[in-house]
Amino acid sequence: MELKEFSMRIGDDFHCHLRRGDMLGKVLPFTASMFGRAVVMPNTEPPILDRFDPHLYYKEIHQYKRNQSYSGFSPIMTIQINESTSPSMIEGASLEGVAAGKVYPIGVTTNSANGVRDFGKISEVFKRMQETGMLLLLHGEKPDTFCLHREKEFLNTLLKINKEFPELKIVLEHITTRVAVWAVKELKNVAATITAHHLLLTLDDVVGDLLSPHNFCKPIAKSPKDRLALLEVATSGNPKFFFGSDSAPHLKERKECSSGCAGIFSAPVAVPLLVEIFEKADRLDKLENFVSTFGAVFYDLPLNKDKITLVKKDWIVPESYDGIVPFLSGKKLSWQVK
Amino acid sequence: MELKEFSMRIGDDFHCHLRRGDMLGKVLPFTASMFGRAVVMPNTEPPILDRFDPHLYYKEIHQYKRNQSYSGFSPIMTIQINESTSPSMIEGASLEGVAAGKVYPIGVTTNSANGVRDFGKISEVFKRMQETGMLLLLHGEKPDTFCLHREKEFLNTLLKINKEFPELKIVLEHITTRVAVWAVKELKNVAATITAHHLLLTLDDVVGDLLSPHNFCKPIAKSPKDRLALLEVATSGNPKFFFGSDSAPHLKERKECSSGCAGIFSAPVAVPLLVEIFEKADRLDKLENFVSTFGAVFYDLPLNKDKITLVKKDWIVPESYDGIVPFLSGKKLSWQVK
Repeated sequence: MELKEFSMRIGDDFHCHLRRGDMLGKVLPFTASMFGRAVVMPNTEPPILDRFDPHLYYKEIHQYKRNQSYSGFSPIMTIQINESTSPSMIEGASLEGVAAGKVYPIGVTTNSANGVRDFGKISEVFKRMQETGMLLLLHGEKPDTFCLHREKEFLNTLLKINKEFPELKIVLEHITTRVAVWAVKELKNVAATITAHHLLLTLDDVVGDLLSPHNFCKPIAKSPKDRLALLEVATSGNPKFFFGSDSAPHLKERKECSSGCAGIFSAPVAVPLLVEIFEKADRLDKLENFVSTFGAVFYDLPLNKDKITLVKKDWIVPESYDGIVPFLSGKKLSWQVK
Repeated sequence: MELKEFSMRIGDDFHCHLRRGDMLGKVLPFTASMFGRAVVMPNTEPPILDRFDPHLYYKEIHQYKRNQSYSGFSPIMTIQINESTSPSMIEGASLEGVAAGKVYPIGVTTNSANGVRDFGKISEVFKRMQETGMLLLLHGEKPDTFCLHREKEFLNTLLKINKEFPELKIVLEHITTRVAVWAVKELKNVAATITAHHLLLTLDDVVGDLLSPHNFCKPIAKSPKDRLALLEVATSGNPKFFFGSDSAPHLKERKECSSGCAGIFSAPVAVPLLVEIFEKADRLDKLENFVSTFGAVFYDLPLNKDKITLVKKDWIVPESYDGIVPFLSGKKLSWQVK
């Protein structure tokens, strides 16, 4: 008998770019209506660096949230850690309720020109994070290496940090490779987020036929074998792997141009798409844990109380939401939020 | 002492897309002013399929050529071979002076929806080509395989054709991988063209930083190791490897959009760029053979008589030529045609 309706505990998005200002206003409704919480990335313009930045950013998100009446949604704040971050900044941010610090190796993605070149320089910061219980979120790519090898090449850095700070909770963000799945499985206190789009795409969907800027993101989608490894582990019930959309909106003209920005705006489709993917894999029973339990447990957060219900009803993803082209625009999805 | 001027026998472009109509008028001057001859690809709209098509296309090129006063330039005509091609069509085309037949596996690049699915169906065509001395030009990618493996996966097909028709002269076009270099070296009567852009680019230049539609082509640029293998063999003096630009113009709006066309418009920069690349590799003495000798010998054509002279003088590649963005637009090149 075909399933017509699906309910689960509402999920969290453990990796989300909400941007600031106008763009924040445009994209917030999609995340706020489909998730209980979202871990908000700090590589905004201006970036969220110091203890007072998260507070201002939180207020900004809250203002939009109130105007748009999404009372059930809470952002989880982060700061960006770079070589100027001090242990006392960690202390301060922790007291302000900042849950995690994000590290971007220099130049690996949007707004990461101020990223970390020498991980040795932030060793004291990691130490203080370990003491305060602040999570370390890693964009796991090694700069200046071949694009398909960047994640693999970064794993040595992950290993070193994990060895030096065994109690520091680390999330390797938006993993894309089989070897990263393997590393995360092996290492204690290390978990990983997986996006919806990396469960679906390979490099073929970016450059294999016509060039598809709206499938272009960092880390770039990899081979069919890598995609399969992600799908297998996401649907396996392993609590080290949970959902983070990495929804990353850019205006259409910043994507369809001579130097297109990296980032996929998946917030409008992520939950329906996940239901479709897990249903197709015959693992719908594993979805709630992937989206609504494992991440919260790793972050030491209470589970959400609300439910979300989806109904099986075809819809065509719009070509654009207010100038932003969503993931799978023009494509048919078979589930929608009730 | 720094070289200030460089002269050589004018070269041939053994793989070129001149398009038709307006576009032909726009792009012909670049090829006609810098090459003695160009092997003109048949995947135009409409395609060059039958014995009368090349004649009409030749006349069209000739008309533009006369209007633009490029008397020294000659197109070398080809036909596209698909599953509807008959041995008698080969016979007829050969009598009309068509030098080569091009095979596109189905769907691998621009205007290849009418390509070949089953190579067994064109066995008799290959036989007649072998008899008439018409060259077989192969777009060497296997459809429906992972984009980075398509060239490698095609090599089995190349091997089979070469084994069954050992006297058939085959050119594996625009090779991009180390393994293709190896295969071409091994096989008798098999040669390869190499583009200027594949001597310069890797996948990093397409998707490694921002998305670069003007570096997007088929076959897609591969790894640094692959690029190095191409550079080594192109500058080695091996007569099986010669220049074909694969210059493939598209209007800017067909490149910078949600489904960007594959193809790099390199004709305006190819010769200066080759001089720069070969000079940097300290192999400028090998350039004339790569561009002006080896291909002509393989095609059994007389060598060009004219000379071309370049002077060392910086110039910035224009952002656009009449609506077409050239390869390396906005970048500095250090040589120009005198």
